[in-house]
Amino acid sequence: MKAARFHAKEDVRIEHIEQPTPGPGEVKIRTAYSGICGSDLHLYFEPESTGLKLDRPHPTTGAMPPQVIGHEFSGTIVELGAGVTRLKVGDRVAVWPVYYCGECAACGRGMYNVFRRIAFHGLSSHGGGMAEYTTVAASKVHVLPENVDLRMGALVEPMAVAWHAVNVSGIQPGQSALISGGGPIGIGLWFALRARGVNTVLVSEPSPARRAALTQIGATLLVDPLSEDLSARVRAETDDRGVDVVFDAAGVAAVLTDSVRQLAPGGKVIVVAIHEKPVEISPMRLVVGELSVGGALGYLQPDFDAVIAAMSEGLYTAEGWVSEVPIDGVVDAFHELRSGNLMKVLVSTQ
Amino acid sequence: MKAARFHAKEDVRIEHIEQPTPGPGEVKIRTAYSGICGSDLHLYFEPESTGLKLDRPHPTTGAMPPQVIGHEFSGTIVELGAGVTRLKVGDRVAVWPVYYCGECAACGRGMYNVFRRIAFHGLSSHGGGMAEYTTVAASKVHVLPENVDLRMGALVEPMAVAWHAVNVSGIQPGQSALISGGGPIGIGLWFALRARGVNTVLVSEPSPARRAALTQIGATLLVDPLSEDLSARVRAETDDRGVDVVFDAAGVAAVLTDSVRQLAPGGKVIVVAIHEKPVEISPMRLVVGELSVGGALGYLQPDFDAVIAAMSEGLYTAEGWVSEVPIDGVVDAFHELRSGNLMKVLVSTQ
Repeated sequence: MKAARFHAKEDVRIEHIEQPTPGPGEVKIRTAYSGICGSDLHLYFEPESTGLKLDRPHPTTGAMPPQVIGHEFSGTIVELGAGVTRLKVGDRVAVWPVYYCGECAACGRGMYNVFRRIAFHGLSSHGGGMAEYTTVAASKVHVLPENVDLRMGALVEPMAVAWHAVNVSGIQPGQSALISGGGPIGIGLWFALRARGVNTVLVSEPSPARRAALTQIGATLLVDPLSEDLSARVRAETDDRGVDVVFDAAGVAAVLTDSVRQLAPGGKVIVVAIHEKPVEISPMRLVVGELSVGGALGYLQPDFDAVIAAMSEGLYTAEGWVSEVPIDGVVDAFHELRSGNLMKVLVSTQ
Repeated sequence: MKAARFHAKEDVRIEHIEQPTPGPGEVKIRTAYSGICGSDLHLYFEPESTGLKLDRPHPTTGAMPPQVIGHEFSGTIVELGAGVTRLKVGDRVAVWPVYYCGECAACGRGMYNVFRRIAFHGLSSHGGGMAEYTTVAASKVHVLPENVDLRMGALVEPMAVAWHAVNVSGIQPGQSALISGGGPIGIGLWFALRARGVNTVLVSEPSPARRAALTQIGATLLVDPLSEDLSARVRAETDDRGVDVVFDAAGVAAVLTDSVRQLAPGGKVIVVAIHEKPVEISPMRLVVGELSVGGALGYLQPDFDAVIAAMSEGLYTAEGWVSEVPIDGVVDAFHELRSGNLMKVLVSTQ
């Protein structure tokens, strides 16, 4: 079968490899679409930044390069391993791609999303979504309802990241939010917030192209922070109160420092972006407003169910921000994404 | 009557002034003890740092210097104003000393503790606890149970600050905590945490005198951060997990930056100290552990009920950390406290 495999830095090859066979408790999936994630770009352009030790077997999965990439994927079940009864051949599915230990301080409290040696199917395991077929444990498989198509199915994983961040924020229906950064995660936050009854959702995004995409999904409270006074706009849209939560999906130090100023009393900043350096935060400001700055990472498996249910209710669209390439175009797409010309790319694997 | 009145920077005088008369809905209290708070020291030594504009009437209370100080006080009701029926002459009481607007973004959501123009009886109002008598609205008065004495009654206010910070942290029974800084608020945190079923409570405090005081209240997990590896000790006491909450009652930038490293997955740092400058925080660390750094300020009125109930259950002691001076010694006590020779001082007003 055809597969996109990571060999080394800036070396991803489209190769022909053997189809996998489902073991007991596993299913074989004929894949359909596999999204390209920021972490795929990190793996390709600067693998050392991922923290993965690629010269030795992964401590959780035993995998090492060359390995199939693609951890945001959908497909159709074509074969059941021994003992699998919950699923059937022909089921259209999304896959929760996480491997964890279940025993450490993080996993022990159900926070496997912050497990230090977490692995993903398609990033640090034997298989992945950017191959014509892959096998995974049946327990990782989420069946898509009839009205959720396979393109949407490949978006479940990145949308779950945003859904989880909204959970971590504790935001309530009727409260207000500001999303800093209108990339794929920012878009996911917008969908998740609206799905949760948060109607006042501002999005701050300097790129005109991204603001145009945001308009297409239905976002109206858009701010260009380069030409508009963000603070003034936040005050204007919130009866001078500030927002209850700022989601930092930008990863820019000055933006994060400034985020705290946009908060209502008791408000929170939730960081879902990557910051490589420490950021200056005023503890005094946190104290006098009872504010907080926290982080959210990845997702828990129930977030997949929640996102799929919201998709089935028609609360998500792929219009205006999702494009598609064949598997042979994956490396070109990496370069396009890196240069900021594309928002979200699904690799078609059939 | 005798009263300690603030006139200007480094100018607090013991004077004779007229006794106040209770208006409708108010009570007149013969005061007993009044604690000296860090904010009294700020008012005395560097009034500009308090944010109070002392050359004009306070926007909430209309008060301006000279004014009676002392906002952590207890006493006995000696007279009822018109219409007061819930209280009676002879009641021994503590006073919740807050004045707020009830209408702004903060007050409107019940967070009057972060109201920007909050005023306190004894800091920014017409009367205070460091006078033989004072009058307050009956609604601010909390009756002390028989087994809570008037010295303890004067500790309700500072202990409520710590109790509230524990509420903000959301810590649960059976979880673990580290208190950075074993001053009066650190001690209050220790009592509040133990009262809430948090048994693993480490306290990091460099001063041998303060550690000795902590020993007297019953604290056993004491760390001298100057001679011991705090991280190693935290790991040792928490099965290598880290603590669920760090309370920063120290106000030292490097200590706060380091606090994040002591946390278990999902943990929080709650700042209850004053930091004058921004602090460097690693957002990456917040993200990969789903950690947060937040602030807590003051208290809500129900915190007074909770602290008084815990005092009545015998969960607080004044042994080993509280000393007493007559009202004429208040300025000397300011200097002693500033030099770090005393922990908590109650001014006896009778």
